[in-house]
Amino acid sequence: MTAELESQNSWLSNSDMEQVRNRLPIVYVNVIPVRTDATGEVTEIGLLLSPDDDGNFRHALISGRVLYNERVRDALVRHIEKDLGPVSFPRIPLSINPFGVFEYFPTPDVSGLFDTRQHAIALAFVVSVSGDCRPSQQALSLNWIRREELSSGFLEREMSNGQHQVVISGLASVGLVL
Amino acid sequence: MTAELESQNSWLSNSDMEQVRNRLPIVYVNVIPVRTDATGEVTEIGLLLSPDDDGNFRHALISGRVLYNERVRDALVRHIEKDLGPVSFPRIPLSINPFGVFEYFPTPDVSGLFDTRQHAIALAFVVSVSGDCRPSQQALSLNWIRREELSSGFLEREMSNGQHQVVISGLASVGLVL
Amino acid sequence: MTAELESQNSWLSNSDMEQVRNRLPIVYVNVIPVRTDATGEVTEIGLLLSPDDDGNFRHALISGRVLYNERVRDALVRHIEKDLGPVSFPRIPLSINPFGVFEYFPTPDVSGLFDTRQHAIALAFVVSVSGDCRPSQQALSLNWIRREELSSGFLEREMSNGQHQVVISGLASVGLVL
Amino acid sequence: MTAELESQNSWLSNSDMEQVRNRLPIVYVNVIPVRTDATGEVTEIGLLLSPDDDGNFRHALISGRVLYNERVRDALVRHIEKDLGPVSFPRIPLSINPFGVFEYFPTPDVSGLFDTRQHAIALAFVVSVSGDCRPSQQALSLNWIRREELSSGFLEREMSNGQHQVVISGLASVGLVL
Repeated sequence: MTAELESQNSWLSNSDMEQVRNRLPIVYVNVIPVRTDATGEVTEIGLLLSPDDDGNFRHALISGRVLYNERVRDALVRHIEKDLGPVSFPRIPLSINPFGVFEYFPTPDVSGLFDTRQHAIALAFVVSVSGDCRPSQQALSLNWIRREELSSGFLEREMSNGQHQVVISGLASVGLVL
Repeated sequence: MTAELESQNSWLSNSDMEQVRNRLPIVYVNVIPVRTDATGEVTEIGLLLSPDDDGNFRHALISGRVLYNERVRDALVRHIEKDLGPVSFPRIPLSINPFGVFEYFPTPDVSGLFDTRQHAIALAFVVSVSGDCRPSQQALSLNWIRREELSSGFLEREMSNGQHQVVISGLASVGLVL
Repeated sequence: MTAELESQNSWLSNSDMEQVRNRLPIVYVNVIPVRTDATGEVTEIGLLLSPDDDGNFRHALISGRVLYNERVRDALVRHIEKDLGPVSFPRIPLSINPFGVFEYFPTPDVSGLFDTRQHAIALAFVVSVSGDCRPSQQALSLNWIRREELSSGFLEREMSNGQHQVVISGLASVGLVL
Repeated sequence: MTAELESQNSWLSNSDMEQVRNRLPIVYVNVIPVRTDATGEVTEIGLLLSPDDDGNFRHALISGRVLYNERVRDALVRHIEKDLGPVSFPRIPLSINPFGVFEYFPTPDVSGLFDTRQHAIALAFVVSVSGDCRPSQQALSLNWIRREELSSGFLEREMSNGQHQVVISGLASVGLVL
């Protein structure tokens, strides 16, 4: 099925995708990977360290599109595997109801979240992973940050495009108020 | 802004829209209008009575696309006004986090919900309205159904494309289990 | 800590507990144990088969009180372990926000859910278990029921005190509308 | 019914209540009153300004117990009316599912939220009010604070017992990340 989806995706050529991006909101999933203790309490969160468009290293969420005919569940599995490798053993949520819906507009003035390429509507999830996380080449590393070390100021400085809002909100949804 | 959005929308010509619909999931909002008592308990739900593609009258939700650069909140206001008229006085939810995310696939075998035209991902909301609801021409009438009269069998018979699932789920989310 | 909690609990003698039960709502957790596939979709739900007050065998949820000074998370772990044994490997939810709050009143006319002993307010969770479930003596067995075999009629017949409402609602919250 | 509930409550004498408070978690509702624009977006939040146990003025949420045989909905109505007066016109949520469950322990070290009198489990709601709010005598005034003026630091300084966590979390749940 993945092959089929990819072929459908490549069928949407880059120039076509550019055109579509200026006309319709694009559905995304956003994932905050976490580690927990035995009672389900979050102990660490994982942030990808990647170069942004200007070549600076920034922390980022796992993020990616939902493809045509792809279930949200399968998009979650696919993007987590893409960024954390094949043995991260994510516990995909029982419900595809996100902790929050986040709107990325082409300009920062609407919601504070923005994405210059497009209008994206992201379903955001906190996902517990229990295995070994090995980020792919594109994301240079994955930083695990202990809950004691997190602060809203840190996230705001380290993340781009207003994405710290997604992390702060996701942590609040699991009882961790920064 | 509505005018601007509509012009952007018409700018996506019908044939363009057809092409896009075969390539990307389209973001929708689904709304179940309800009336409540003073303690917030749902007393009645509203269902639109519209002709389906075969000319049969079927009950349906309020449903419509989120446009490029449109906030989910504004899409809710726009579609409720389109279907219930200008004085329905909807209480738009404080949060755009839906009670459920529903995936309509082009074929009924994936999720039971389907839409032959497209792959739609709908954010679904229960919205209380306190005003006078006057459906537009397209939806021929709005039926208010008292909670005592509702059953899962009734909804399954009366609604198309698996949409009774959305209503049953929405009612469960407000404490009304059919 | 469990020992400490139990001693606090026994410190509330049976007659004291009787008195309190007539004066205050008692906080409970309700748990629907499920098995899932790799994408998080529920494939089976577990129901305890226990004798009710009249000696008839009825299906029931995992249910129990939250004790003084006990975290909701710890109450979840304790009651799941009590009913499913020590190696069920539950995935305690990341958030203690329940899928629903259910009010059991001493008489069935208020909410349909009732508990003749008390007014209980239950925080209800769907919890995935990946291990081996061995119910304790009190609950004679645990029945795993495949999603294809579930119906609202079955649950209504098999469960007491309106508790089928909790299960139907919980399954709706994970996308399984009966 | 209010009279009946109050009589039941007074029937639980102060000394009895003291005893119960040391033995069982007590169910509370916490309410953040807000004003919104026509699209449901929060524009202002209301905080009560009350003297704390040491006579200092502190900002606080609307907060109070759920009584025996009282529905959560009715507790919400009662406590909002008690603190905001009879014409605040609250829009009681359609669902009694809270945005968060907050655990106040007798000591601050467990969750950061505490209440020296008791172990309280609070169901927390953001509630839109459209009328005229006139706090009762006990709460000396109600301050409306515009969203632009809010910050997590302000809330942490102004609120006691860790209660700023509830407000920050509630605002995040409606898309307002501080």
